[in-house]
Amino acid sequence: MSVNLKPLGSRVVVEPIEQEEVTAGGIVLPETAKEKPQKGVILSVGPGDRDEDGKRIPMDVKEGDTVLFAKYAGTEIKVEGKKLLILRESDLLAIVETK
Amino acid sequence: MSVNLKPLGSRVVVEPIEQEEVTAGGIVLPETAKEKPQKGVILSVGPGDRDEDGKRIPMDVKEGDTVLFAKYAGTEIKVEGKKLLILRESDLLAIVETK
Amino acid sequence: MSVNLKPLGSRVVVEPIEQEEVTAGGIVLPETAKEKPQKGVILSVGPGDRDEDGKRIPMDVKEGDTVLFAKYAGTEIKVEGKKLLILRESDLLAIVETK
Amino acid sequence: MSVNLKPLGSRVVVEPIEQEEVTAGGIVLPETAKEKPQKGVILSVGPGDRDEDGKRIPMDVKEGDTVLFAKYAGTEIKVEGKKLLILRESDLLAIVETK
Amino acid sequence: MSVNLKPLGSRVVVEPIEQEEVTAGGIVLPETAKEKPQKGVILSVGPGDRDEDGKRIPMDVKEGDTVLFAKYAGTEIKVEGKKLLILRESDLLAIVETK
Amino acid sequence: MSVNLKPLGSRVVVEPIEQEEVTAGGIVLPETAKEKPQKGVILSVGPGDRDEDGKRIPMDVKEGDTVLFAKYAGTEIKVEGKKLLILRESDLLAIVETK
Amino acid sequence: MSVNLKPLGSRVVVEPIEQEEVTAGGIVLPETAKEKPQKGVILSVGPGDRDEDGKRIPMDVKEGDTVLFAKYAGTEIKVEGKKLLILRESDLLAIVETK
Repeated sequence: MSVNLKPLGSRVVVEPIEQEEVTAGGIVLPETAKEKPQKGVILSVGPGDRDEDGKRIPMDVKEGDTVLFAKYAGTEIKVEGKKLLILRESDLLAIVETK
Repeated sequence: MSVNLKPLGSRVVVEPIEQEEVTAGGIVLPETAKEKPQKGVILSVGPGDRDEDGKRIPMDVKEGDTVLFAKYAGTEIKVEGKKLLILRESDLLAIVETK
Repeated sequence: MSVNLKPLGSRVVVEPIEQEEVTAGGIVLPETAKEKPQKGVILSVGPGDRDEDGKRIPMDVKEGDTVLFAKYAGTEIKVEGKKLLILRESDLLAIVETK
Repeated sequence: MSVNLKPLGSRVVVEPIEQEEVTAGGIVLPETAKEKPQKGVILSVGPGDRDEDGKRIPMDVKEGDTVLFAKYAGTEIKVEGKKLLILRESDLLAIVETK
Repeated sequence: MSVNLKPLGSRVVVEPIEQEEVTAGGIVLPETAKEKPQKGVILSVGPGDRDEDGKRIPMDVKEGDTVLFAKYAGTEIKVEGKKLLILRESDLLAIVETK
Repeated sequence: MSVNLKPLGSRVVVEPIEQEEVTAGGIVLPETAKEKPQKGVILSVGPGDRDEDGKRIPMDVKEGDTVLFAKYAGTEIKVEGKKLLILRESDLLAIVETK
Repeated sequence: MSVNLKPLGSRVVVEPIEQEEVTAGGIVLPETAKEKPQKGVILSVGPGDRDEDGKRIPMDVKEGDTVLFAKYAGTEIKVEGKKLLILRESDLLAIVETK
């Protein structure tokens, strides 16, 4: 039996990627008080919010995108042992492309 | 005599599903400060909010859907001994499908 | 001489129904921190708010409906010895139908 | 010389009616924490607010109406010894009709 | 050399009229906690705010009007020794007409 | 090498004019708790914000205008030794014309 | 392997330019309590937010622009050792042109 999460509105389900706090050769120290984002992969994407006429606003991200998001955004859920996050698209900061 | 609840606007009536805090073989400890959602089944669905022209915005969930919602969202009501919740659709995070 | 209250905008006049805190055979203890709603009967209904073009948005409740509303919503008024409440329709949670 | 007040926007000028806190035969004690409204008569009515296209939204109350309003709403002014209130129409709760 | 102030948006320039706190024969004591308004004469009127399509919303007051406004509203400026106030039209409560 | 600042949206770049706190013959004492505005000259003007359809809303001030603005509004920047301010047009109170 | 950041909505990726706090010949002391902005170069620009009809609102800045922004705005990210910022266009104050 497998579980499928269909996010509502402009929400996405994201699997966070743990980032090493310690880089090769040294310790990363926070240099500023600014919020640092977290990285993750999008597992599923909602249908989008509705505009004032009830029409769907298309989503700008898709399944499989690697994204950055604010560290404390969203709601955490554990599905089959995996820690996932449900976030609104507006909480996503950028898509990360690796070439 | 049976009681029927017709939620108003974009509200839904949800019967929460109690989730075991303790999983097989161990204790689940909260790993982060993030809010954890709760699961429930939708018993009835309101007609939807009205847009700026007074037309109904269709609802994205239906009776019988299993949904996730923030743990402290909504208003609790006891109907014939059952603890139910009245929530706005915007407080619902995702539909859970089990295959 | 009788008094008639015509609520303005999307307001309704509600006569609250006192609910027994104690059920047959025992004491109901609050199990959660969630807000519990109150029940009442609608005595009169306002004409509805106006949309951005000045047209009335129709009301979803009518005189005689039994409704649930948040316990501390609205403004209390005493008319001919009866304790009534003036509430906005958006403060109403659901219509209760008994069959 | 007499003074005439022309309220602006959706404002009204109201002359409050003092209500006896003490009823015949006893003292009224506040039973709940809910806000109690005050009664008054409308002396003059503004032209109404403008909608997004600059057109006037008609007022729902008129000169001479007896209305209920929240006790601490509005701005007090003393005109020729009389204590009057300038209120927005949205602060009015209901029209009181006595038959 | 004379100074001319052209208020921007829906702002007006008002010269406040000092009101005697003490009336003939006695001292006026504040009877309630409600805010008391101040009187003034409009010296100049802005072009009005723009609606959502960029068109001007006409102003409801004109140069020379005597108006009431909340005591602590606006920004004070001293022009050629005179204490003036720059207020938004929405801070004006009513026009005072004396016949 | 000279620096040119092109403000974004409805922002303007203003060079503040220092005003003497002390007038001829005496000391100006603050008489009220009201905010006092500051004077400045507009050095450059942004293209204007966009309305809901993406069209520019024209600016009401132009390069060279002497304007009043709230004392603590805006962001300060030092360009070639000169202290300048970047303000939104909505923070400007009035244009000062001297004849 | 190189990383490419595609900002979402009206966001931009900015590489901050460190500014010397100490100028030639002396120490710059903060003269006012006003917020001082920071300078940076835009590395990439999002597609723009959507208006109420779902259409893109064009961006006013482009890759390569030198911009000013509030010192504590945005989210910091480290990409290949470089400290970058993800900001909304509305947090940008002005474009700096050097001639």
